[in-house]
Amino acid sequence: MTQTAPISPGARLAAMRAAAPLIHNITNYVAMNVMANVLLAAGASPAMVHAREEAADFAAVASALTVNIGTISPPWAEAMEAAAASAVAHGKPWVLDPVAVFASGYRSGACTRLLDLRPTAIRGNASEILAQSGGAAGASGADAGDEVSAAEDGARALARRSGAVVAVTGPVDFVTDGTRALRVANGHGLMPKVTALGCSLTGVVAAFLATGEDPLDAAAAALAFYGLAGERAAQGATGPGGFAVAFLDALHALTPAELDAGARIEAA
Amino acid sequence: MTQTAPISPGARLAAMRAAAPLIHNITNYVAMNVMANVLLAAGASPAMVHAREEAADFAAVASALTVNIGTISPPWAEAMEAAAASAVAHGKPWVLDPVAVFASGYRSGACTRLLDLRPTAIRGNASEILAQSGGAAGASGADAGDEVSAAEDGARALARRSGAVVAVTGPVDFVTDGTRALRVANGHGLMPKVTALGCSLTGVVAAFLATGEDPLDAAAAALAFYGLAGERAAQGATGPGGFAVAFLDALHALTPAELDAGARIEAA
Amino acid sequence: MTQTAPISPGARLAAMRAAAPLIHNITNYVAMNVMANVLLAAGASPAMVHAREEAADFAAVASALTVNIGTISPPWAEAMEAAAASAVAHGKPWVLDPVAVFASGYRSGACTRLLDLRPTAIRGNASEILAQSGGAAGASGADAGDEVSAAEDGARALARRSGAVVAVTGPVDFVTDGTRALRVANGHGLMPKVTALGCSLTGVVAAFLATGEDPLDAAAAALAFYGLAGERAAQGATGPGGFAVAFLDALHALTPAELDAGARIEAA
Repeated sequence: MTQTAPISPGARLAAMRAAAPLIHNITNYVAMNVMANVLLAAGASPAMVHAREEAADFAAVASALTVNIGTISPPWAEAMEAAAASAVAHGKPWVLDPVAVFASGYRSGACTRLLDLRPTAIRGNASEILAQSGGAAGASGADAGDEVSAAEDGARALARRSGAVVAVTGPVDFVTDGTRALRVANGHGLMPKVTALGCSLTGVVAAFLATGEDPLDAAAAALAFYGLAGERAAQGATGPGGFAVAFLDALHALTPAELDAGARIEAA
Repeated sequence: MTQTAPISPGARLAAMRAAAPLIHNITNYVAMNVMANVLLAAGASPAMVHAREEAADFAAVASALTVNIGTISPPWAEAMEAAAASAVAHGKPWVLDPVAVFASGYRSGACTRLLDLRPTAIRGNASEILAQSGGAAGASGADAGDEVSAAEDGARALARRSGAVVAVTGPVDFVTDGTRALRVANGHGLMPKVTALGCSLTGVVAAFLATGEDPLDAAAAALAFYGLAGERAAQGATGPGGFAVAFLDALHALTPAELDAGARIEAA
Repeated sequence: MTQTAPISPGARLAAMRAAAPLIHNITNYVAMNVMANVLLAAGASPAMVHAREEAADFAAVASALTVNIGTISPPWAEAMEAAAASAVAHGKPWVLDPVAVFASGYRSGACTRLLDLRPTAIRGNASEILAQSGGAAGASGADAGDEVSAAEDGARALARRSGAVVAVTGPVDFVTDGTRALRVANGHGLMPKVTALGCSLTGVVAAFLATGEDPLDAAAAALAFYGLAGERAAQGATGPGGFAVAFLDALHALTPAELDAGARIEAA
């Protein structure tokens, strides 16, 4: 038995851009515009479709789906569940973003129902993954109140229980499928000063999942790509406003070769 | 009978800015912020009002209305229809933006009902206009999958059937009232890499319609203004992030004389 | 009896940043993203939560609440009232932003019910405060159609009647608790050319109220901070696009010492 060479992050980026996958997003009002711009800049084709009348049909034709509970309300929750079930039925990957799942019983109930629909991946900050895995989150709003390291055991447990790849993002990201785990050390401290960059990352993860066979490595490549674009954008940025602009430019400009040279992915 | 001199695009821009028309927009969640900024930068006064409880009343006092189905759902569809009917009843122009009308039966049904309310103009990409005119669209998401040239016959037919000026926007725009037709060759390839610039153009078309007598020429002037601002913004832009910023600056800075010098409008 | 030294605007800014208060916002779709970025850049932690199922619970744990009627509809109005009542019950300040309250009977009815819930502060443009105080507004859309000076008497009356600090913002802001009044002369003419900067200011006022004892002086410090960031951002800005980017950078960079040096707050 011969071993195939591993697919590099840069090769994954090139494949994603070549496919320009249609990413169906049911996300929060704060994130919609920046997420669409992030996906366009990265090379994917975003669409935001949330009506119950069409969400399931649209998930069937899109390349991947993301579901983000940031500004969830009951009609949207119905569409999220219908779209996720449709994605699964049609063999399309879908990614869950459990924004502030710890903030209310309403949110945690919605996430429990979504988890039952077997997401391909879950991306959240440490507080969100801790809460999702049954732990106590040290946060009350949308920003993380816990260190990534504190959520690693929870992430492994959540991955094993749900069957999803779980990505805990922060200064150093941790991503696991319950068996293997990776750390991704790309990124910059200005990223959490721009709203919805975490939410938008969920879309980029979906775009890489849509065009890669192995969800753990595909997700890690997406995290490295995103973090490296953040590092490049921070060069010369004088604050979060200029950084956000330069970040879109960096997502657009970063080449596969640059990603291979700059990605800091290690076994955990 | 003497022939009056044609009104130049620059004169139309000056008239629009002098009037600063109040543009009532019922648009999608992705576009709202950028559309408001585009209208402010161009010189109009935007307002986003979608509640059924007030949409018809607001359409009666605004200078023009736009309706965009990008993130349509049933309560919004009701407000769209009520606002469009009110605009017509009060002699105000209204513009339909049939985002991804081909994506679901729900969308095409909503658009059919809106078309019956006789929009003054319809603006879409080639796939949207093709679908709206009864053809088969080569797209599945929000981005165009067809060439503008492929939608010209459909645009003429749609204009004749609906009574609306139909604008197909892309690398070279095509706009027709069913009898006459114009091509507008302004624009830049970075424009489709920024989300909601097409949606926002619909608002600028409405602003020019609100302050011009002849919808076909008013729409063409709006398209030339928009595209020329895109050309200017692309000078020195290093990617879609910086381009989006420079585009707002260009809409704000472009003078009527510069528009007259740079507009590339030709009979089709 | 000794008199304590007044707290400087810079000291209030430092206190706000040290606390990084969680600000719960129920605001309009146009403003959500920019408001979140403004609050992050200023040093607060924003959260947008509007579902009736959780809004009251969330208001109880947040440091302050803002309610903005810009794109109000009946389900959101219910959540606004529940959240405001919860904020009051838990001793948290809340700020009302009566966007275009004059535009429909639906809006003015919603505002009347919110006023009965005793906001800590009300921030609006001159036309909005005039309408809220029972006068006739000279505007039809979201932009002010009246001078700040024309709304001063109305602001005093509204403050006395409602118990709220009332801030009328414009070229020179006027803020009063019904007894005392201040003028804040910071700001720049490009600010109203960027959508939702007024809405976002409401969040900054809430952040200062959440970390200051005296609402009138806390609100004035917030207005000075915001206006001074606008003045700094305008240096070198070539239009509303670049200005909006530089404005976030300025909110992030402005130091307490710079605010104390640049604030132009005077008794009215």
